[in-house]
Amino acid sequence: MKFTQNPFRTIKMVSSELVSKNAKLLTQASYIHQEVAGIYTFLPYGLRVLNKIEKIIREEMDKVAIEVYMTSLSPKKNWEQTGRINTVDVLMKTEPANAASAAKNTTSYVLNSTHEEMVTPLIQEFAHSYKDFPLCVYQIQTKFRNEPRAKTGLLRCREFRMKDAYSFHRSPENLQTYYDRMKDVYMTIFRRLGLGDSTVMALASGGDFTKDFSHEFQTIVDAGEDTLFIVKSTKLCFNREVAPSQAPKLNDDNEEMKTMTEVEGVGMIGVTELAKFLNIAREKTTKTLLFVTETGDTIAAAVRGGYAVDEEKLKKIVGAKTLKLASAEAVKKITQAEVGYAGPLNLPDSVKVFFDESTSNRKNFECGANKTHFHSTNVNWERDLPLPEKFYDFKVAKEGDIYPETGEVYDVRKACEVGNIFPLHTKFSKAFDFTYLDEQGKTQPLYMGCYGIGPSRLLGVIVEKYADAKGLVWPKNLAPFTVHVIDIQQNDRGAEIYQKLQAAGIEVLWDDRDARAGEKFADADLIGVPYRAVVSEKTGDKIELKERTSDNAELVSLDELIQRVTA
Amino acid sequence: MKFTQNPFRTIKMVSSELVSKNAKLLTQASYIHQEVAGIYTFLPYGLRVLNKIEKIIREEMDKVAIEVYMTSLSPKKNWEQTGRINTVDVLMKTEPANAASAAKNTTSYVLNSTHEEMVTPLIQEFAHSYKDFPLCVYQIQTKFRNEPRAKTGLLRCREFRMKDAYSFHRSPENLQTYYDRMKDVYMTIFRRLGLGDSTVMALASGGDFTKDFSHEFQTIVDAGEDTLFIVKSTKLCFNREVAPSQAPKLNDDNEEMKTMTEVEGVGMIGVTELAKFLNIAREKTTKTLLFVTETGDTIAAAVRGGYAVDEEKLKKIVGAKTLKLASAEAVKKITQAEVGYAGPLNLPDSVKVFFDESTSNRKNFECGANKTHFHSTNVNWERDLPLPEKFYDFKVAKEGDIYPETGEVYDVRKACEVGNIFPLHTKFSKAFDFTYLDEQGKTQPLYMGCYGIGPSRLLGVIVEKYADAKGLVWPKNLAPFTVHVIDIQQNDRGAEIYQKLQAAGIEVLWDDRDARAGEKFADADLIGVPYRAVVSEKTGDKIELKERTSDNAELVSLDELIQRVTA
Repeated sequence: MKFTQNPFRTIKMVSSELVSKNAKLLTQASYIHQEVAGIYTFLPYGLRVLNKIEKIIREEMDKVAIEVYMTSLSPKKNWEQTGRINTVDVLMKTEPANAASAAKNTTSYVLNSTHEEMVTPLIQEFAHSYKDFPLCVYQIQTKFRNEPRAKTGLLRCREFRMKDAYSFHRSPENLQTYYDRMKDVYMTIFRRLGLGDSTVMALASGGDFTKDFSHEFQTIVDAGEDTLFIVKSTKLCFNREVAPSQAPKLNDDNEEMKTMTEVEGVGMIGVTELAKFLNIAREKTTKTLLFVTETGDTIAAAVRGGYAVDEEKLKKIVGAKTLKLASAEAVKKITQAEVGYAGPLNLPDSVKVFFDESTSNRKNFECGANKTHFHSTNVNWERDLPLPEKFYDFKVAKEGDIYPETGEVYDVRKACEVGNIFPLHTKFSKAFDFTYLDEQGKTQPLYMGCYGIGPSRLLGVIVEKYADAKGLVWPKNLAPFTVHVIDIQQNDRGAEIYQKLQAAGIEVLWDDRDARAGEKFADADLIGVPYRAVVSEKTGDKIELKERTSDNAELVSLDELIQRVTA
Repeated sequence: MKFTQNPFRTIKMVSSELVSKNAKLLTQASYIHQEVAGIYTFLPYGLRVLNKIEKIIREEMDKVAIEVYMTSLSPKKNWEQTGRINTVDVLMKTEPANAASAAKNTTSYVLNSTHEEMVTPLIQEFAHSYKDFPLCVYQIQTKFRNEPRAKTGLLRCREFRMKDAYSFHRSPENLQTYYDRMKDVYMTIFRRLGLGDSTVMALASGGDFTKDFSHEFQTIVDAGEDTLFIVKSTKLCFNREVAPSQAPKLNDDNEEMKTMTEVEGVGMIGVTELAKFLNIAREKTTKTLLFVTETGDTIAAAVRGGYAVDEEKLKKIVGAKTLKLASAEAVKKITQAEVGYAGPLNLPDSVKVFFDESTSNRKNFECGANKTHFHSTNVNWERDLPLPEKFYDFKVAKEGDIYPETGEVYDVRKACEVGNIFPLHTKFSKAFDFTYLDEQGKTQPLYMGCYGIGPSRLLGVIVEKYADAKGLVWPKNLAPFTVHVIDIQQNDRGAEIYQKLQAAGIEVLWDDRDARAGEKFADADLIGVPYRAVVSEKTGDKIELKERTSDNAELVSLDELIQRVTA
């Protein structure tokens, strides 16, 4: 492509709204254009890279699944059938935009954020017998999600490209076999995208589909929104939400037990402030929260200061479907105090108290006194508070925490989820009453898995990983062009090299502008094409070849150039 | 592909809801699957054809424009800027689908039905100088339109694939040059898609953008929703909406003028019923409609019985921005009669009467008498009704009408619009205040054109044109596969031919099912792959090769087969 054929020139200053590295650089180099928060147009360079990413995904997926192209609009009834029309918190729907449109058709459609609700009844029309399974379909398509914040460029968008696959199986074992195969397919894809060495498979929540974990493919980049807890010795990797965590010990074994006292601290309800006021370590404070379950029972959950309660973990421990923080009124009724002073001492017997393991192994610790403005200090296990039958783990894991199995401190890393595979089991087949007939003609439950990868997000992740201070840097197989040609004197050499490289089947960007050399070099660095080929009076009949990632240039002939870049 | 790799088998009976030939056959052969009216999933075979159509469009468009990929969601402000948020009658918008989603982001977006509102401000950010123009961008993308009815399969969908291009120019002349070039590009595309000989360029309305015509590319097929009026001698072709029309003469020149009479016909307001009642030809009746303009003026429009008034034509003649049928109350006030008895005789002077040319050249004709239940009969020009200064053409053209320039009866054909090119002039650049600086640094208006082609609609049109009683028929370059292999004895021959053809780079569908030969043959005809290759005990070491469009089979060797299908 000639530089001047592309109306979307590089930009000097980008909007201060674009805070992430990928959004900033991709906008500056005119790969993408933000239309509104989280919604990006792909400009010519960006579309070229996106197409290469999707081609690689397609090539690998074609080995294990068959491609279809489902619709973005869904009849509402499909989402009503699973009940998810009310629960998927990123779901959007359509309405006629004006009266004239409403006069034509008043139907409201769901704008699919994912396609379980489409693919399950679709496959149900075609496959009924044990002979028809296993099977897997996939598509690459634009998805729509009503994300709350969209500040990380292509890493989280309201409209984005997605490859989603859905598999159907006769047994959980067959699902597992296919699922394991898909892990390999995914790692092959990430390797081909240049992310193999920085992408790990992390265990994540199986949601309400299964007690099993789902698996996330996480690329370790600073801009990532996810936090991984990695066990170095075993390479086991957890998303924060499911990381089993043990709090570091306090080293207060040798402390003397002090006298338990009630201390008045007016309005002291934050643990940091409270610790300062009481002149104790924050870890000696205790946060006790009251929750109400779906059956109306109230429970208390205590963690040590500095930790938050992970409600998903707690729900499973309590065996509750939902947990809601108790209202200020309910707290007052139970504890006889305002919110902020609840503690495990002297709670009514009806309130079961769950203790996180971080509250154990402490001496002389603080608890709320169940009395407005008052805190019990120098509380000690057994003497003041009976040891519970069991300590649990329901805290939000944090840096410094220990993996209980091996006693290692976790390696904690920021990462971006680039893929996710999910054993759906019978969640959707049951919702649509989709079963199959086995060899004996007996109805059997059907098992499903789903498998997602976001091509546009991957593009952003690749930028986050590879770009440097001067601009974008692309793996050679993904770059929009292989060679960036600059002819400083703007003679015919540039045109000649451009044509000859193209004739050799090489993708070339030729900066044919009438512009300063410095501007052309800066743009070449910003755009990030792997090879820069410069000709000028100084280079004679040779070409100055430099890789984007190297500081060293060398003089080569055109034939050598072609050999080098096609090697 | 092996037949059994595709879970989407052919279907015996399709829903009676699918009435069009393309929807019926494409569903039966499992190329597409209707999710809800006008919304279709592309199954593997269908996606293969769609991809081939889009590839051809892309190859030709790349010669004249640069590809981008804009977004489906648009901020509302873009559509408010042009005012089209309230007027585009197929426009949809998004809303959060549930309370949890609304809690995250309450923004409502427009779901783009076309992209002038996106592309104009986008280009405005990048191009400002005379040096930057002309330029043209295009995309291939899913579009959303809230169509009122969606009964013609892929010919009219609520969600469909579209190629849309937008060009920007410094002058109307430059726009015209590019526009004419695009006509050639389009005809090349239709030729490559096998539609060249049945696709014509028709003149259509320029909408409110321009007094010029826009140009539609219309493929003549019975299932088409449009009606073309073709002038045989000049090949000129009009969409019905803009066809200049002259009504055929009545041949009543030799009739004697009869005495004008008022006849009572209680409740006779339909022209067919009235003609029967009066025992005259329907062409002797006159339909007089009263309209109110945006300034509150009332006008009357008279056409002869059997014609309808084309309000778009009439608006231009009257010079009105809007025309509304007068209310029953207003009609009564002006004509002193109920609706249905208005006529040009004795109307108040304030009501200007426009006569369609179909009302001229008649003797002894009927008009409403402006008196409830009464009709004036045997009305004659000059004697009873002064000849107007001018007769106009504001009727809806119909079969049998004459092209006034040459006096030929139109050739009237049903057709489907497969492409549309539109001189937008300054409509959108003005709305966004998008100008450029000329060589003298002076601000100048910018001219735009837009150019659409619907790949998924084209797929439907190709079916309408080529399919036969036995099933689908594909042009060779668009077929999902080139050869359909059937091995009747299910020996290893099928597998061997399949592998060898694939190795030769030929796209093959191998029916590897354990099924009856008759079923396989019927499916081969239904799926419509161009070449069928059958091996059985009878064919010996040869292969029975038959083209889908031929009844004759011949025995060939594998090498001959490869030569034949790659020729």
